Amino acid sequence: MERIPILKLQNYLLVTIQVELHDQLAITLQDDLTQTLSRTHARGVLIDISALEIVDSFIGRTLAHIASMARVMDANTVIVGMRPAVAITLIELGMSLTGIRTALNVDKGMELLRRADGSDPESS
Amino acid sequence: MERIPILKLQNYLLVTIQVELHDQLAITLQDDLTQTLSRTHARGVLIDISALEIVDSFIGRTLAHIASMARVMDANTVIVGMRPAVAITLIELGMSLTGIRTALNVDKGMELLRRADGSDPESS
Repeated sequence: MERIPILKLQNYLLVTIQVELHDQLAITLQDDLTQTLSRTHARGVLIDISALEIVDSFIGRTLAHIASMARVMDANTVIVGMRPAVAITLIELGMSLTGIRTALNVDKGMELLRRADGSDPESS
Repeated sequence: MERIPILKLQNYLLVTIQVELHDQLAITLQDDLTQTLSRTHARGVLIDISALEIVDSFIGRTLAHIASMARVMDANTVIVGMRPAVAITLIELGMSLTGIRTALNVDKGMELLRRADGSDPESS
């Protein structure tokens, strides 16, 4: 099981991270995600991190890389399900995840992606 | 990370199984799922097993248990993303997953749940 599954939900891709992200797994995820974006023409990526009790600088960097890759492939990225303790740690690590949008849960994340997609002028 | 996250998608719950399901983890998942069903009044459960290369009789039984529990809580269960090799193994193990619906991917699974929900007479 050395692969994080990427689920397609309508026009978006959903990734649930629930295992320790080591180097190789992070690279595989980035590869798989860019390939799936290119194949499915998805408009956004939702990454659920509700299972993560700890987000270290490696995971933070990986998430930022994924968001940048998605951006150059014309897709938005939203991180959902961040635990309060994780938010505190991230800021303490000096990682404010600039350029990555966040939402409290998948429903709100999908709403955010849809709004960004519909080029709503009110989209944040 | 001794917990499989349960995501809420509109009226449905989505569970992606990507780690080895041992006894305690299966029990925790069943507990979490029934509690989430009761709290959210979700109408269905989608279980994605696309990450599983092997489904043994323990996992098969766990999936069947989850479906039965969901049923008595008035929710349908759909298993999505089964690999061809897993389908072969399941049948060879004599587990035909009776009472559990399956769909090829999350979108089709959601469609199945929506149809069952809308009490469409054509729903299979």
